[in-house]
Amino acid sequence: MQREIHFENQKNRDYTIYIDELAPMHFDRKVAIITNPKVSGLHLATILEKITARERYIITVADGENYKNQQSVDWILENLFNHRFDRGSLLIAFGGGVIGDMTGYVASIFQRGIDFIQIPTTLLSQVDASVGGKTGINNSYGKNLIGAFYQPVAVYIETAFLRTLPEREFGAGVAEIVKMAVTFDAEFFQFLEKADLHRKEDLSLAIAKSVETKAKVVSEDEKEKGVRAVLNYGHTFAHVIENITGYSRYLHGEAVAIGMVMANALAVRLGLLEEKDALRIKALLEKYGLPVSFTINDPEAFYEGFFLDKKTENSAIKFILPKGIGGYEIVTSPDRSTVIALLKEFSGEA
Amino acid sequence: MQREIHFENQKNRDYTIYIDELAPMHFDRKVAIITNPKVSGLHLATILEKITARERYIITVADGENYKNQQSVDWILENLFNHRFDRGSLLIAFGGGVIGDMTGYVASIFQRGIDFIQIPTTLLSQVDASVGGKTGINNSYGKNLIGAFYQPVAVYIETAFLRTLPEREFGAGVAEIVKMAVTFDAEFFQFLEKADLHRKEDLSLAIAKSVETKAKVVSEDEKEKGVRAVLNYGHTFAHVIENITGYSRYLHGEAVAIGMVMANALAVRLGLLEEKDALRIKALLEKYGLPVSFTINDPEAFYEGFFLDKKTENSAIKFILPKGIGGYEIVTSPDRSTVIALLKEFSGEA
Repeated sequence: MQREIHFENQKNRDYTIYIDELAPMHFDRKVAIITNPKVSGLHLATILEKITARERYIITVADGENYKNQQSVDWILENLFNHRFDRGSLLIAFGGGVIGDMTGYVASIFQRGIDFIQIPTTLLSQVDASVGGKTGINNSYGKNLIGAFYQPVAVYIETAFLRTLPEREFGAGVAEIVKMAVTFDAEFFQFLEKADLHRKEDLSLAIAKSVETKAKVVSEDEKEKGVRAVLNYGHTFAHVIENITGYSRYLHGEAVAIGMVMANALAVRLGLLEEKDALRIKALLEKYGLPVSFTINDPEAFYEGFFLDKKTENSAIKFILPKGIGGYEIVTSPDRSTVIALLKEFSGEA
Repeated sequence: MQREIHFENQKNRDYTIYIDELAPMHFDRKVAIITNPKVSGLHLATILEKITARERYIITVADGENYKNQQSVDWILENLFNHRFDRGSLLIAFGGGVIGDMTGYVASIFQRGIDFIQIPTTLLSQVDASVGGKTGINNSYGKNLIGAFYQPVAVYIETAFLRTLPEREFGAGVAEIVKMAVTFDAEFFQFLEKADLHRKEDLSLAIAKSVETKAKVVSEDEKEKGVRAVLNYGHTFAHVIENITGYSRYLHGEAVAIGMVMANALAVRLGLLEEKDALRIKALLEKYGLPVSFTINDPEAFYEGFFLDKKTENSAIKFILPKGIGGYEIVTSPDRSTVIALLKEFSGEA
């Protein structure tokens, strides 16, 4: 089965997300496939069979978040100029979120913007990073501090690439799928409770539903002035957890899973979510091996951690909380005492 | 007198160009004024009197096209991060085209885009660079090869800054004004023939008219797929001249003046322009001390030079020619022999 999701954004640049199809494609222009050694070792042969071009180049950058930086961007640009890429050329991001973010950013600044295509190879990048147009790199001051809002011309999601994905990384992708269901779509959540995402059909449907939901949210609010903030459900807590654990203990999706459990507990306290629904969400996360608990040693310090987040503008903390399953409420700067009481719940003290 | 030109672009990001007004402004956010030592020595005091902010910073970069590069961008970014600029901060470009292009580019990539304001201090940047959203930097491969289409939130054009502008640079700005009139507006051209642009009222009106015309063209075609190409009238020749003369003999506007004279000669040959109108244009350029002749030593080599231009896609040369005064025609790949004959006209041979 093939699914197509048409994505319309505010900038008159529409694109389509193709799910479960990687049909042969020929491009009558210069094409560079940007990838890393790991992904290319596993899957480049498949891509080279499917994608042909008038001139085709492969550019590899080192694998991992640590290499999502200006040096890698310079390296890609150097290769493009060297091979006389021009405004009519095309870049293809072939890898996970790092490759996608970096390729998108290079595409946005090369001769003031050229076309790029996303072929995400991790579940997380398939459901999350490939939709929304956020591109960027890190620097010594933090993550994604340099970047652009820039859309691909198309996204091809091929679940076959996920067969080689480690189980933990698969789970991290599931966390983002659950996130979409909890805040936007009760029916989708019920489907996920019954589904087995290791089955191809269920997985394709879950990816399609997630991508469609995110595309809708983003098209309404590309620059995160309103509803797009809801995509940060679980993230306010997750960023503090990642910070405390030095970005090494948990994958991002795992930290988000714990963050959702914490957000749910706050939602229960504020009367937005029933305890039984919080348990349903927790059970769904556990089904995919995601962590759902975390011991907060110092609740006061954890609270201060909220203010280090770059999204915390003018010292207002914004919590995205589920309002029942399938709804959300944005709670800005709740009582400090309420939040501290919640954090103590996770400290073993309460 | 104060003029306001409302600029609407395709990205739902509108902005206003204010001419002849620099009213006091206070910004309740972090503001960085990006400038160079020359402009700041001459005019920073004026700006500091007019512009106040919750936190105000001045960042200077070295003066000139040679410094429109990644190192200067890094330097600006380093300062912004160092002073904890965030998504709500504002950049102000205070200088000529180089400062404007670079500041706009930094604004476009800093945390995926922050607000910036243009306060151009040269005639060329007032009538040309400040409108249209082209930002960028040079690298070893060429000019403006890295950049973005990114619009300012406002442009303030204050002709008082032009009092310190060298006469040659003033003329270079006039060339772009003449360009707009010849291709788009016969009435404006007639006004220019009668006007004295050293008089403040005439100058303000000419700037307003140019900016308005360019804003209209760009809003119809931000990414130069159609009518925006007309802004390159004179430029196809100018780029070759600049190349031959090593970018040192002529200011860009001066090369454009010669380029327009050459384009006009081609237009006369093709029956698009009457000889007497070509002479009127030449006379107007001469009135502001602009060069109107150039000896082409090697017509064949000059012809080859057209193909080095990055805008020459797939080996098609595009000439923007006046169709009478106030109109234009885009002539793609005219007979090689016609063009060579024209070039010989400038070699002293013909």
